[in-house]
Amino acid sequence: MPSGVHALVRRTHEERVLRALQENGAMSRGEIARIVGLSRTTLSEITGSLLQRGAIVVVDTASRREGSGRPAERLALDPASAQFMGVDFGHRRVHVVVADASHEIMASGATRYDDTTPWQERTALALTLVERLTAEAGVHYGALQGIGIGVPGPYPAPEGRPWPRTTPSGTVLRPAPEGVDVAFAERFDAPVIVDNNTRLAALAEAISGAESVADLVYVRLSDGVGGGLVVGGQLVTGSSGLAGELGHVTVDPAGRPCRCGKRGCLETVASVPAILAACWEFGLPLKDLRDLADAAARAHPVADRVLREAAGALGRVVGAATMTLNPAKVVIGGEITQLAPVIVEQVAATLGADLFPTASAAPVVEAARLSDDDGAIGALAAVFHNSPLLARYPETADVKAGAGAGESTIEGAAHVRP
Amino acid sequence: MPSGVHALVRRTHEERVLRALQENGAMSRGEIARIVGLSRTTLSEITGSLLQRGAIVVVDTASRREGSGRPAERLALDPASAQFMGVDFGHRRVHVVVADASHEIMASGATRYDDTTPWQERTALALTLVERLTAEAGVHYGALQGIGIGVPGPYPAPEGRPWPRTTPSGTVLRPAPEGVDVAFAERFDAPVIVDNNTRLAALAEAISGAESVADLVYVRLSDGVGGGLVVGGQLVTGSSGLAGELGHVTVDPAGRPCRCGKRGCLETVASVPAILAACWEFGLPLKDLRDLADAAARAHPVADRVLREAAGALGRVVGAATMTLNPAKVVIGGEITQLAPVIVEQVAATLGADLFPTASAAPVVEAARLSDDDGAIGALAAVFHNSPLLARYPETADVKAGAGAGESTIEGAAHVRP
Repeated sequence: MPSGVHALVRRTHEERVLRALQENGAMSRGEIARIVGLSRTTLSEITGSLLQRGAIVVVDTASRREGSGRPAERLALDPASAQFMGVDFGHRRVHVVVADASHEIMASGATRYDDTTPWQERTALALTLVERLTAEAGVHYGALQGIGIGVPGPYPAPEGRPWPRTTPSGTVLRPAPEGVDVAFAERFDAPVIVDNNTRLAALAEAISGAESVADLVYVRLSDGVGGGLVVGGQLVTGSSGLAGELGHVTVDPAGRPCRCGKRGCLETVASVPAILAACWEFGLPLKDLRDLADAAARAHPVADRVLREAAGALGRVVGAATMTLNPAKVVIGGEITQLAPVIVEQVAATLGADLFPTASAAPVVEAARLSDDDGAIGALAAVFHNSPLLARYPETADVKAGAGAGESTIEGAAHVRP
Repeated sequence: MPSGVHALVRRTHEERVLRALQENGAMSRGEIARIVGLSRTTLSEITGSLLQRGAIVVVDTASRREGSGRPAERLALDPASAQFMGVDFGHRRVHVVVADASHEIMASGATRYDDTTPWQERTALALTLVERLTAEAGVHYGALQGIGIGVPGPYPAPEGRPWPRTTPSGTVLRPAPEGVDVAFAERFDAPVIVDNNTRLAALAEAISGAESVADLVYVRLSDGVGGGLVVGGQLVTGSSGLAGELGHVTVDPAGRPCRCGKRGCLETVASVPAILAACWEFGLPLKDLRDLADAAARAHPVADRVLREAAGALGRVVGAATMTLNPAKVVIGGEITQLAPVIVEQVAATLGADLFPTASAAPVVEAARLSDDDGAIGALAAVFHNSPLLARYPETADVKAGAGAGESTIEGAAHVRP
């Protein structure tokens, strides 16, 4: 068998051993082998590797002897062993969260940096932050099952796009280098998933409600307009890392030039700078998002009209995406969405008109539950879902129900900081 | 562990045993256990079940003895044992294909029926056809790993849609009853996947090229306009079975009424009846698709203009779907696409204008490779890809390369009837 399948089978076995120990407490190798259905040889390899990495510990030696003449050691999970790590590189800070085998968050922290800080230095700061968590919270990383890393911008950076780019507010956006994954993979000897952090936010939203949804369209309005898709429980990347770029769907072929080179993209009418500019144009000079929130709260006619037009364009784009993907939920993120509830209202109304009139299949439209600062939760969610037995999380509804583990669920982590 | 995960683990083990026998030929239980890394107990349960179902046979008893005093039996795949079945229920006929463990097609056949035939009778006709294949080709079904069934219309039929529906050409479309899956599952004791056959065609197209693609948008122009999406190697269903219904994206809010209840859906300008009606309107009375093909071949100005306008609308809808999903390939199906190459040309041109101008991420746009009659291949493809170790087929590129099995690849089946 080729290495890809080999590694998958190996990780599946490891995860089943860890799960058996989580559910049953300390056990001898013989007991584990029987529960998991593996041969003694295969099981010994796996426990050997888990012991060496510090995921499990020998807790005692059972008095009763099994089979051979040697007393049987009993093995158990190491409670200080972090199993999953989520890292979110923002423009100006990195967040790290680590979770245990039951998906509970064990420790978290953040380090700020300047938005011109090069990637190599950001990576070093993040690794230092992880070490600090070791000292402060007493966790160790010998058995990490996976690391999720969120970065701004498409990842890997598609060829042919102009990098670095300047956002409308003047931030210089540099693509994350391929090296960010290698640095973490080498340091922790664990598989690493890197993805755009807006896309990871989509995954976090999909599992953050009372019931997780398998199909979700997420759009975030900020300096630009970004988005992410969850389809069948999986985060969608697309063939070249551009899936979910709803901000650059054309809404008016004769509209304003967009930084992407086209005209009349959704971003030219629905980003925060575009909305503020339109208000100025109609005689309402607003400085920033706070001013806009005040004007919206007073139902100022110009602010109301501009917001409704922006949200109408967004609704048409989301409507086409909804006809395409038939999601259960549409989530609109970005601070502006919290400040101006008219956006979600108008998106829902516009989108409704684009659906099958007779279908009861209209998605729920709502404002994001998690803040823009919650990218590390999304990164963590990504590694949970890439865990072999948990892949395609609708099936984990069974795991949750069956295990009866209360807070020790896949939603556990996402609920920590809603 | 809950039954869902149990069943998955069990099927994964079964499949690894079958694969080991496929790669290595006849082996004793001890040899299989060592290769697959399972305990003797677990392995015995699995071979017992496979023997009982007729997937494997005892070929001989090795002269050399292993461990215990009993001579070791050697087990092998039964070459007459069908492993996968694809069934395609069209409006007027059902197609069945069956494939072996190496994904080679072992037998296929079709039975015609009237388009008013009720589902119960269609199901009975299909099961009779399967029996006929048994007699004619000598295959048996004791070890089917999965059955894929394609049906017209959304499945399961979403609530609130008007069923039965009449298509523009007068065919009465009835939703497939839930019972179609139960009938096959009970008859063959195998997992069944039922899906819309346009959607299954999308999956078949995704694996039918020289290189399979993981992300594909498929649209079929016929009496209506249907579609299907493959995302990350998986067929997309959506939250209520409506994903890929690109025919009902609004292209002109002031346009003609659509049978779905909205106005100006893509289907009202790009379905075959809509294209023929538009030609009449502009003074070119065409009877059917053949007439249209002749007119297109002569580059008749009315036919050319109508086709370009229809394809332009299609291109804008596909363009928005492409910005959303970033597919590697867009495939346009339906007989009309073969007869009027201008459609694919115009879609590619329109779609190109909607993409990031600087990105090298434009999808390939092409006419369907498989005919509308090839739904059973799509149904077969669906079960191959739901096979636990083969799920998410980009990984199977490794399996193929690693196994060096030549024609015994996942594409094998799809290449049989291109």
